[in-house]
Order: sequence, then structure tokens, then C-alpha cells
Amino acid sequence: MFDYVIIGAGFAGSVIAERIATQVNKKVLIIEKRNHIGGNCYDYKDENNIIIHKYGPHLFHTNNKEVFDYLSNFTDWRFYQHRVLAFIDGKNVSIPFNLNTLYEVFPKTIAEKLENKLLGKYKYNSKISILSLLKEKDDDLKFIANYVYEKVFKNYTAKQWGLKPEEIDAQVTARVPFYISRDNRYFTDKYQAIPKKGYTKIFEKMLNHPNIKIMLNTDFKEVCQLKDDEFYLFGQKFEGKVIFTGMIDELFNYKFGELPYRSLDLKLETVDKEWFQKVATVNYPNDYDFTRITEFKHIHPANSKRTVILKEFPKPYEIGKNIPYYPVFTKENRELYNKYKKMAEKTKSLILVGRLAEYRYYDMDDVIKMALKVFEEKVK
Amino acid sequence: MFDYVIIGAGFAGSVIAERIATQVNKKVLIIEKRNHIGGNCYDYKDENNIIIHKYGPHLFHTNNKEVFDYLSNFTDWRFYQHRVLAFIDGKNVSIPFNLNTLYEVFPKTIAEKLENKLLGKYKYNSKISILSLLKEKDDDLKFIANYVYEKVFKNYTAKQWGLKPEEIDAQVTARVPFYISRDNRYFTDKYQAIPKKGYTKIFEKMLNHPNIKIMLNTDFKEVCQLKDDEFYLFGQKFEGKVIFTGMIDELFNYKFGELPYRSLDLKLETVDKEWFQKVATVNYPNDYDFTRITEFKHIHPANSKRTVILKEFPKPYEIGKNIPYYPVFTKENRELYNKYKKMAEKTKSLILVGRLAEYRYYDMDDVIKMALKVFEEKVK
Ligand SMILES: Cc1cc2nc3c(=O)[nH]c(=O)nc-3n(C[C@H](O)[C@H](O)[C@H](O)COP(=O)(O)OP(=O)(O)OC[C@H]3O[C@@H](n4cnc5c(N)ncnc54)[C@H](O)[C@@H]3O)c2cc1C
Ligand SMILES: Cc1cc2nc3c(=O)[nH]c(=O)nc-3n(C[C@H](O)[C@H](O)[C@H](O)COP(=O)(O)OP(=O)(O)OC[C@H]3O[C@@H](n4cnc5c(N)ncnc54)[C@H](O)[C@@H]3O)c2cc1C
Repeated sequence: MFDYVIIGAGFAGSVIAERIATQVNKKVLIIEKRNHIGGNCYDYKDENNIIIHKYGPHLFHTNNKEVFDYLSNFTDWRFYQHRVLAFIDGKNVSIPFNLNTLYEVFPKTIAEKLENKLLGKYKYNSKISILSLLKEKDDDLKFIANYVYEKVFKNYTAKQWGLKPEEIDAQVTARVPFYISRDNRYFTDKYQAIPKKGYTKIFEKMLNHPNIKIMLNTDFKEVCQLKDDEFYLFGQKFEGKVIFTGMIDELFNYKFGELPYRSLDLKLETVDKEWFQKVATVNYPNDYDFTRITEFKHIHPANSKRTVILKEFPKPYEIGKNIPYYPVFTKENRELYNKYKKMAEKTKSLILVGRLAEYRYYDMDDVIKMALKVFEEKVK
Repeated sequence: MFDYVIIGAGFAGSVIAERIATQVNKKVLIIEKRNHIGGNCYDYKDENNIIIHKYGPHLFHTNNKEVFDYLSNFTDWRFYQHRVLAFIDGKNVSIPFNLNTLYEVFPKTIAEKLENKLLGKYKYNSKISILSLLKEKDDDLKFIANYVYEKVFKNYTAKQWGLKPEEIDAQVTARVPFYISRDNRYFTDKYQAIPKKGYTKIFEKMLNHPNIKIMLNTDFKEVCQLKDDEFYLFGQKFEGKVIFTGMIDELFNYKFGELPYRSLDLKLETVDKEWFQKVATVNYPNDYDFTRITEFKHIHPANSKRTVILKEFPKPYEIGKNIPYYPVFTKENRELYNKYKKMAEKTKSLILVGRLAEYRYYDMDDVIKMALKVFEEKVK
């Protein structure tokens, strides 16, 4: 009846389903816990006629032509270059921190001095890690490195990961760059674009195929079982391949313990004016409890007198209470993950792919690239 | 795993699923051929921000308080009284044909004369069938009866059912009434209302329950089988009850032949002006090949500078080519239906309900009432 079972209808599951249906003409059953397809990329039009990204703002950007061309089969694009400001010392200034930002933050004389020092030392359009700036002997370079680290990264990272500022691993965060440039864009990838009608339409188009059946609102545990390294579907042994994009610890009933994730409380607000802020996203590294505010009209233009904004409040993930968004990368967690992975390898028909199943932070383009690769190498 | 299987996610299937999930706390699998829930009542918001009824205009009206209260669990209402005009002799006039219409159609002196004759003979606010008017001795009453029959009903009926005007059974159509009243409303039911956010939202709310699983894009024949009067699901004998709301002849592979239906070619047009016509629906009994034009903004107010209209062109139903909308009531077809029904009775677990499975023209309120009854008497 079905040749493949896929658990999860995000990009990982949907791309593989689409490939199976169209490239090898086999039948797929997708099982998805939520009441919609699209995973964390799901969006919808609200009562203000504004497209909202339900699980946080999603900006597509890639240098991978193959991925861009593949997605272009399912959508027209709006060519959009993402801008982010950061609220620093009472002012919204451009980030990634670059030469323009110097002039936005400091009095002109200081900005000029810093700019000249930087340009004297580094190539224009290069990205210099804060870490290497801190190692410079020059006091001005040290000063600017410290400033960026303290004002832009330290507290933001602490909020995001729920750490005290002193717990932040300076070595890691100091890898973030100072951008010796006047380029104010948040990303510099070759392909930056927004699907004209939103992401959900992409998934609808991908999955609209007679070979693909979808069960929404269905936790895989309701209809599948892994027993003695064999996979069962609707109580019958399932002979085909199983592509799993959910949480690997859940698949094994948390046998070795829980893999930690960060979650977010996402608070949507409708504001009764035409615009709320100058750009799509403003980060709040030091103020308030949210990390950033996104205004969706900048991402998807809309004909509305109101505007909708989203505040993101980071939280620990708790099973059944909120959604696991970001894996927490520590050596310990990686080892725990590997235990599960080894366990999974015993079930020959099982293929793990995606953000949750691989416990990796994937951007959309990465996960699509990986899904296309997994299809070629392991699925078809 | 599942206690019930329901085939079809229109009102018949969805109401029963909702009752099973919430009243007896059992598990249901719904199998639906289309890529959406809601059956023929499905609607969506288009790019003009206008709610469109994909399968033709749906106006909810009922005298049944139980049905109205039940539906009110799933929606807020906009209280809306439906108006229909008919394009007669180059002018849009009110229907059902009533005393106002006389003045819209005829010169004042004639209208007054006809009105006085009608009021002299019949009670105000009564509905008189064209048939009984034709039997009157008075020439004026005969004249108006004939006029209404010829101009409003005959050709409309011919278009709708694909007959030549001379093939129309005058006896049947002449049952339609002349309304001795100044009430221009199309329906006179006590409860007339439109779901504030459209019909699809009702279905989403009804079916959003952990006990309900839905497979869209799935013809029941892909996953179920009826063999030796037993029902099979995913290749296994299914022990629970099966609620079937699809076409009964299809269920039995057209064993005794096809049940005929009328279909419609539905042509949507976006018009670049604020309004297209004065009321929601204008009938075209005598002109053009479509039966009526509906302008959705009258039904669901929308903030748009454009407007969207729908033309309905009746067609015969052809398997696989279009959608079966209206059963064709003839004695012969009823007998054919009964053969299938008898066949179905052999499968003890099988319950037939809805417009297709019962081969009946149900309005929405009727089908909901029937589904609630079937749930109480046969399902739970
Ligand atoms: C807040 C936020 C912002 C982001 N912004 C960007 C961005 O700007 N640009 C970018 O490129 N990427 C961004 N991403 C990353 C992007 O969301 C991921 O790359 C992408 O969603 C990964 O796809 P996936 O299929 O692996 O996972 P998901 O999209 O999470 O899909 C997994 C699916 O599996 C389902 N599932 C889980 N458990 C079960 C179960 N037990 N039973 C059945 N189904 C189950 C889930 O419901 C989900 O639908 C962002 C992510 C987050 C969280
Ligand atoms: C043009 C038009 C206008 C109407 N206007 C009104 C109105 O104004 N007011 C009013 O009260 N009523 C109106 N109705 C009637 C209303 O649509 C019906 O009362 C209602 O849709 C009946 O619900 P149902 O569940 O019986 O059938 P449906 O809504 O037809 O649902 C049956 C479902 O079964 C599915 N199905 C069929 N075959 C299969 C298969 N092989 N496998 C899986 N699934 C299958 C179908 O896809 C469909 O979703 C109108 C009907 C039409 C056609």
C-alpha cells in the first residue's frame, strides 16, 4: 500500500516525499503531529491580510544554486535583502556591526579614528572575528572589539541560551565578526529571497501528488511502533523504508535520557498603525526579556492599515509544554545523541534526517540540500 | 487503533466524526479524496482577500434550532438575508416572484390590476403555486401564472437539468410559488446566517481533536476494500463501523450501472471594480448558458477594490472529469439507487449518510440534522 513512511512534514520530510513521488513513482505516507504541513516554516495570512511566520521569522538565503533552483519549482520569489538593527544604548543601529555602525554609535571623530585604524589594518569587505581584534595590541581595536562583544553579543547570547553573562563561553561567541564594509545586509548570500505567497504554499505544491498521503494531527506513536529493531505501521510489520525527521530521543522513549533543546515563547501583537519599526527585525541584546522583534510586513508586503509584530522570549524546552527549536550544543549532548544514533542504526530500514533527528542546527537551505542528498544516496 | 472509519469530510462525515470524538471518546480515521476538508461547503480567501465558495455559493438557512445551535459551537455568525434577482426581459427583478416584482416588471397600471386580483383572492403572505394559479378562470391570474412559469422557471430548469424546454415536466415545475407578499428575501427561514470566517473554519474547528485523524488526497479505494461483505482497511479486516458519505455506485464498482448526476462548470472571474451587481445572486433564466452569477462580496464583506464573481454552467456528470453535484431524480434512478442500498445492507458495519451516499438533495441544515440523528441511532 505504502512503499515509504515519513515522519514529519517539514522541509526534510516534504522534500524527500516529493522526490519519491515524482522521481521513483512510489507511494509515501507522511505522519505529522501538527495540524498543518511545513514544520517550523509554516506561515498563514491573518485577519489583517498579513503573512505571519507562525514559528518565528524565516528568511531564505543560500549560496547553493541547486537548492535555489529546486525550490523555484514550487514558488515565485520576491527578491528581498534582510536587514537587522540592534537596539544599543537607546538607538537602533545596523548589524552585523560594520563601518556604518561606527558612525551610528559613536561621535564622528571617534568613528573616523576607529574606521581608519580598521581600514589601515584589514582588507575592505573582510570579516574579522572579535577574537582576533581582541588580540591586537592597539587599544582602539581592543576597545571596539570589547564594545561589540559586550553590547551586541554577550547578553543576547545569554538570553538566547538561558545563561548568566559570565557563563558565556567568550571563545565561542568571540568568533562572531566585525564586518569591514559598508554592507548593511544581514546576509551576504548570493540567493536571498522570500516565497511570493509564503512558505506554506511551497509545501502544498510539493506534497500535492497522488502518490503522497498525509495524516495530520497524528503523533507517530499513535500509529507506528519500533519493536525489536523492526518498524510496525497500523499494527503490521512495515517492509519499506522509514524516514524519521522527529526527535530521536522520543523515538526511543528517552531510554538514555532527554536531549536538551531551547524553546521560544512567541508573542504576536497587532499594532494599530501602518508601521512599527524601520526594518524587518530589531534585536534587543541588552534590554527587555525578548531577543528580538520582527515586523512581518517588511518581509511580505501587505495592504493593511495595521501591522503585526512578533516578540521572541527564549525558554528551556519542556516535553509536552512547548516546542523544541534549537539543539543545545555541548560535548555531553553530542555524546548522548550519538548513543541514540547507534541505537537507530540497528533498524536497517530507518533513515534519520533533519533538524531534530540529526540534532543539528540546519538553515532551510542546508536541510533541503541534505534531504536531496539523502534521497539520492539512501532512499531511492 | 481506529474505532471508526469515515469516508468523506463534508458535513455528513465531519459532524459524525466530531460527535464520535467528543461524545463517546473513540478514535476515527477520515479518508477524503480532495486535498481539503469541508466537501462542497469548502471556502477560502483569495488574493483579493475575498472569501470564495469553491463549489458554488452556500447560504445557510434553517428553521431547525438544534442544528443552528449545534453549528454555533464552531462559528460566530454574520446575520445575512439572502437576496436573488432574476434577469428578465433586460432587467434585474426580485425573486421569488412577489408583489414587488409585479411593479418591477409591468407598467404601473397593469401591476396594480394584477396585485388587486391576487390580493382579492389570496391571503397576504401566502405562497400560491403557479399550478393553482393556472387553474383559475380569471385571465389575468392565468396571464401572470404563465408569465412567471415561462420567464422565470421553464428555461432555468431546462438549463439546470440539460433538457429542452418542451421536455420540462410542467406539473413539477409549476409547483413553484408566486409569493403574495412584499418580502423580497430568497429564504424565509428563521435562522439565516453566514459563518463569520467562512465554512472551512467550521470544519477545522470540528475536526481539530486528537481522536480524529484525516487522510486527505486519498480515494477510499486506495486504502480500503469491501470484500465478501467485509470491510478491509490497509489490507486488514476492519472490525469497527464504517460511515460512508461518497457515491454508493462507486463503492460497488458500478456493478448495476452508474447513478446519474448533474455537474457544474464553475467559472470564477476577478472584476476590476468595487461592485459588479446589486445583490449576491442574479439568475439568468433565459439568457446565456450560465444559470446564475454570484458576487461573493455580498455574502462575505471584504475590504477590496476588486470583486469576484462566479458563473455556473450546468453540465452532465462524467466520472473522473467533473464533480457530481445534484442527483437526478427519476423513478428509474431511485430504483437503481435502491438496488445498491440493498447490496450495502449486507455489510453490517456499513452506514450510508449524506448527499451522495443517500442520493438525495440535502441542504446543509438537512444533512447536519441527518448526521446528528444517524450518530444517535446507529453510530454511538
Ligand atoms: C525561530 C526559528 C527561526 C528560523 N529562521 C530561519 C531563517 O531565517 N532561515 C533559515 O534558513 N532557517 C531558519 N530556521 C531553521 C528552519 O526552521 C529549519 O531549517 C527547518 O525547519 C528544518 O526542517 P526540518 O524538516 O528538519 O524540521 P521541522 O520544520 O521542525 O519539521 C519537523 C516536523 O516533524 C514533526 N514531528 C516532530 N515530532 C513528531 C512526532 N512525534 N510525530 C509526528 N510528527 C512529528 C514536527 O511537527 C515538524 O512538523 C529557523 C528556525 C527557527 C526555530
Ligand atoms: C452548487 C451547490 C450549491 C449549494 N448551495 C447550498 C446552499 O446555499 N444552502 C445549503 O444549505 N446547501 C447548499 N448546497 C448543499 C450542500 O453542499 C450539501 O448539503 C452538503 O455539501 C452535503 O454534505 P455531504 O457531506 O453529504 O456531501 P459533500 O459535501 O459532497 O461531502 C462528501 C465528501 O466525500 C468525499 N468523497 C467522495 N468520494 C470519495 C472517495 N471515493 N474517496 C474519498 N472521499 C470521497 C468528497 O470529496 C466530499 O468531500 C449546495 C450544493 C451545491 C452543489
